[in-house]
Amino acid sequence: MHTTVDFSQTRITGGFWKQKQALVRRVTAGAVYDRFYDTGRIDAFKFDWKEGMDKKPHFFWDSDVAKWMEGVAYMLAIKPDASLEKKVDALVDLIEKNQGEDGYFNIFFTVVDPAHRFAVRDWHELYCAGHLMEAAVAYYKATGKRKFLDCMCRYADYIEKRFVLDADTAFRTPGHEEIELALVRLYECTGEQRYLALAKHFVDARGQINEGLANWTDGSYSQSHIPVREQKTAEGHAVRAMYLYCGMADVALHTGDRELQAACEALFDNVAQKRMYITGGIGSSGAGEAFTVDYDLPNLISYTESCAALALALFANRMLRFGADSKYSDVVERVMYNGFLSSLSLDGKSFFYQNPLEILPQMHKRDVSVTHRSVNLPPMQRREVFDCSCCPPNIVRFIPSIANMLYSDDGEVIYVHQFMQSVTTVERGDKMLVLEQVTKYPENGKVKIKLSGGDARIAVRIPGWFDGYKGKTEKGYAYFDLKDGQELSFNFVMKPVFIQARPEVIFDAGRFAVMRGPVVYCMESADNGALLRDIALDSRARFTYGKHPVLGVPQLSVRAWRSVREPDAPLYRQKTQNKEKVNAVLIPYYAFANRGESEMQVWHFVK
Amino acid sequence: MHTTVDFSQTRITGGFWKQKQALVRRVTAGAVYDRFYDTGRIDAFKFDWKEGMDKKPHFFWDSDVAKWMEGVAYMLAIKPDASLEKKVDALVDLIEKNQGEDGYFNIFFTVVDPAHRFAVRDWHELYCAGHLMEAAVAYYKATGKRKFLDCMCRYADYIEKRFVLDADTAFRTPGHEEIELALVRLYECTGEQRYLALAKHFVDARGQINEGLANWTDGSYSQSHIPVREQKTAEGHAVRAMYLYCGMADVALHTGDRELQAACEALFDNVAQKRMYITGGIGSSGAGEAFTVDYDLPNLISYTESCAALALALFANRMLRFGADSKYSDVVERVMYNGFLSSLSLDGKSFFYQNPLEILPQMHKRDVSVTHRSVNLPPMQRREVFDCSCCPPNIVRFIPSIANMLYSDDGEVIYVHQFMQSVTTVERGDKMLVLEQVTKYPENGKVKIKLSGGDARIAVRIPGWFDGYKGKTEKGYAYFDLKDGQELSFNFVMKPVFIQARPEVIFDAGRFAVMRGPVVYCMESADNGALLRDIALDSRARFTYGKHPVLGVPQLSVRAWRSVREPDAPLYRQKTQNKEKVNAVLIPYYAFANRGESEMQVWHFVK
Repeated sequence: MHTTVDFSQTRITGGFWKQKQALVRRVTAGAVYDRFYDTGRIDAFKFDWKEGMDKKPHFFWDSDVAKWMEGVAYMLAIKPDASLEKKVDALVDLIEKNQGEDGYFNIFFTVVDPAHRFAVRDWHELYCAGHLMEAAVAYYKATGKRKFLDCMCRYADYIEKRFVLDADTAFRTPGHEEIELALVRLYECTGEQRYLALAKHFVDARGQINEGLANWTDGSYSQSHIPVREQKTAEGHAVRAMYLYCGMADVALHTGDRELQAACEALFDNVAQKRMYITGGIGSSGAGEAFTVDYDLPNLISYTESCAALALALFANRMLRFGADSKYSDVVERVMYNGFLSSLSLDGKSFFYQNPLEILPQMHKRDVSVTHRSVNLPPMQRREVFDCSCCPPNIVRFIPSIANMLYSDDGEVIYVHQFMQSVTTVERGDKMLVLEQVTKYPENGKVKIKLSGGDARIAVRIPGWFDGYKGKTEKGYAYFDLKDGQELSFNFVMKPVFIQARPEVIFDAGRFAVMRGPVVYCMESADNGALLRDIALDSRARFTYGKHPVLGVPQLSVRAWRSVREPDAPLYRQKTQNKEKVNAVLIPYYAFANRGESEMQVWHFVK
Repeated sequence: MHTTVDFSQTRITGGFWKQKQALVRRVTAGAVYDRFYDTGRIDAFKFDWKEGMDKKPHFFWDSDVAKWMEGVAYMLAIKPDASLEKKVDALVDLIEKNQGEDGYFNIFFTVVDPAHRFAVRDWHELYCAGHLMEAAVAYYKATGKRKFLDCMCRYADYIEKRFVLDADTAFRTPGHEEIELALVRLYECTGEQRYLALAKHFVDARGQINEGLANWTDGSYSQSHIPVREQKTAEGHAVRAMYLYCGMADVALHTGDRELQAACEALFDNVAQKRMYITGGIGSSGAGEAFTVDYDLPNLISYTESCAALALALFANRMLRFGADSKYSDVVERVMYNGFLSSLSLDGKSFFYQNPLEILPQMHKRDVSVTHRSVNLPPMQRREVFDCSCCPPNIVRFIPSIANMLYSDDGEVIYVHQFMQSVTTVERGDKMLVLEQVTKYPENGKVKIKLSGGDARIAVRIPGWFDGYKGKTEKGYAYFDLKDGQELSFNFVMKPVFIQARPEVIFDAGRFAVMRGPVVYCMESADNGALLRDIALDSRARFTYGKHPVLGVPQLSVRAWRSVREPDAPLYRQKTQNKEKVNAVLIPYYAFANRGESEMQVWHFVK
């Protein structure tokens, strides 16, 4: 079977992602825990909340903390940390203590609203269960401790009893997916076929009957409008959709279900070809945090939730197990360096829930006399915690496990999907192959890949953004038979280029993005002054690549033109040529909004 | 005193506006009446609605019908029509019959909610009174019949009693202005100084105390945040603001109040220099139908209510009485041919309430899974009637009286503000001067102005859009001493030009409008296929001026470029040159949306 090489087999030894992992370990993990503590999410696991007390548990709180625990498990797998481990152990003890005799575990439906257990489809009950299961698997694999895993197996057994054996619940499939992929992980970890079967049950039951949510949306919001095998376009809530597709791909892989695989392929193609921002952000509409229609990708009001981008990478990475195709790994890379990474502040402490592609601060001030009816725009600054704080712990689990994106292995070929300075071991019968990557990617595109420990066939993704590769490729991969000790060397030259969108993306019409390698660049008024749309980058000028003096991130500068400021100019007049030469500064999109409120744009005018 | 030459002294003898006046007389007046009849607005004047019946009168219905009556009065002043006059007489009889002993008249506050007479500031009570007064004045002047006028004088007396003499009402100034300018018209018609004093009272009392509306907005929504003399920026509900400014200008003119005049000048400048669309549309925000902040003029979500545009023309035209300045008459012209005129369908039967500057039908379909939370976009098609149907009867009164925009007279000089084929008489002592305009304006800019009946000094506006005038001008007017029988001849050559907005108007950045003379042109997908933003007009090509084969309106065509359609192109790729030459067709903005749903844009990309 074609498998992802688990992140735990890789040591990231330097470069971009090592720094990000260090930041998450040093700052983010603790910051998220502290905010969860402040808001009552941690103590909620004591199950001692009573009516009238503040910090009333919300029905999704279990999942917030579970994702944090899962992230910590990944950090522990890389390097022990007694303090973090103790925090998780304390939570696990509470979970064991407060789990029902029957195996049920949920804070909200035990201490707040026990009458509605398995009664309200949209209240995230099985979503919480899924995240707890993922955390339990991760923690078991990182520490060898079984307690949490055993709890969650009991819970899974109870869910099977209620949803399949007794079939006495008020809904058949959850309003928010996640349990499907989690059950497959439980199956992969324990070998228990019933968990795979239960995952398949939830996947197949979806959309078979008219199973709505509340009356504020239609079935497509939760991907329940038609059976999943018939779905050809990505609909509804983007995070739910991605978690479902991950589960579908997992089930398809483990059961050899080609029809389900084909549905995944069609859904992926719809997203990647018609419903994805250049940053890898998805879910353009704030109403429903949802997909809308093909090519509807407005920049100012883009919703593009961090969780959705991240989950798209998880889905795309899963698709690689059906056979390497760079259309998947290119999307993983697009998300990693852009629409996902923008969610975390450079100091590691605060988070975007929405990741807009353009910010106009003046738009936030527009409805001055009727303040409550303002246009719904994404916040301009990251926050430390949200009422619905799903994104921060997702970052805590994604970055430590990012080496999951590096390799897959079908027993014949080892596939190199991403590039980072690292050492990875891949077991092959009695041999232990070692793959070492030496690279400063994405600082530049020079990559050396060295094989040792034996001979092997290696396939390397040629990045879709690189048009200079001369060798033969198959679905975007170049194949090599390497001997023990042999080294491959690539130079994916990163020169800044202007990117256009298909004309159907009307919001980008007449405008161009700048990319250097996999990194999308943006402009901020902090560097360029106000009215970014008034700047036209000179398409014939050369970009200068350097380091941003304040942010410490890369920067591009290029000659540009903007209107000469004329205070007395009329509001409208005949087209003039009153333009002055300026030097435009661009920074990586992932680094925007780290200097207070600022205009920002990804799509630029070009002269 | 500098006065507007009343429209009744002008006969429009041909051309553009004669056709529009004929359309309103033939179609629009009847269509509006019929829809008002269907919806119960006409029969509401019988005062026989009872709880439990349908067609419950709304608190603004009096004003809808009053504006229709006023419009009919203007038509009757031009040419008698027994059938229309009978309809108005019937309504006047009902008004007389149902007016209170005390002089009060309001349908809603008599038959629906009598307990709240003069109790709810935002419920349009004095707004209705004002429109009834305007109608009464117009009907008296058109027919010589005093009944309606006498009723409204009694009502004005009662309002004076309650709001000034007894001062026992629950609010001091109305939430929706209109009464102020109406009382001045009543004063101008009757010579009764008390009505002018009452108008001044309402103007001066506004914003003196914290007099809110309901809790959903702040004081600026109804221009009540500060005293009107201190107001420097146009705030809040755009129609309310314009009606207030008209009243302020009227009071300032009749009382010689320079401070109030200065406030009007500042407010006008703020609108015309910072808060007005190229079409003359104002009030960019749907939330509050309101002004927002300087340069906030988004095209897709522009609110730009028809009534607001029209009222801006009324305000600007009033400002000309303080001294001719083409900054006012240029705005009048901009509104007349664009943001006002777009509100009426070419067949005269249906109406825009909002007049967007761009339409993307796909945006209306974006929130597919959560339908009730769609982005608030202007409707794409005109409608025959609205729940709040203030705009249609405003069109019925504006077009028949449009000759009010033509001339003003300060006793020394006759000012020619606008151009239309017409004959006008101006009394000068015992002489009756006759001004005849011979022109096909705005078909072309050739204008002959002939004076007869005596000698006179004439000042002619040189349109702001015309840069070819060689003579001397003062504030945009050229002055001439004409002898009896002498003729002036102008050729304001109308060549299509590209217009840019100030860079602060970020929504128009990188894009250009096309104007020919005073007329703004737009593109529709009905002529150009979908994805108008993908079309770049060739700035070096020549426009061809002709007649649109379907609409019968003028059209411009010009060489342009658009992307070669490549079905398999990726969503994002390096900038290409795959453009093909096309012929772009533009039509006057006022003619958009007359062929079903269509993309439309006013601001175009240019190559």
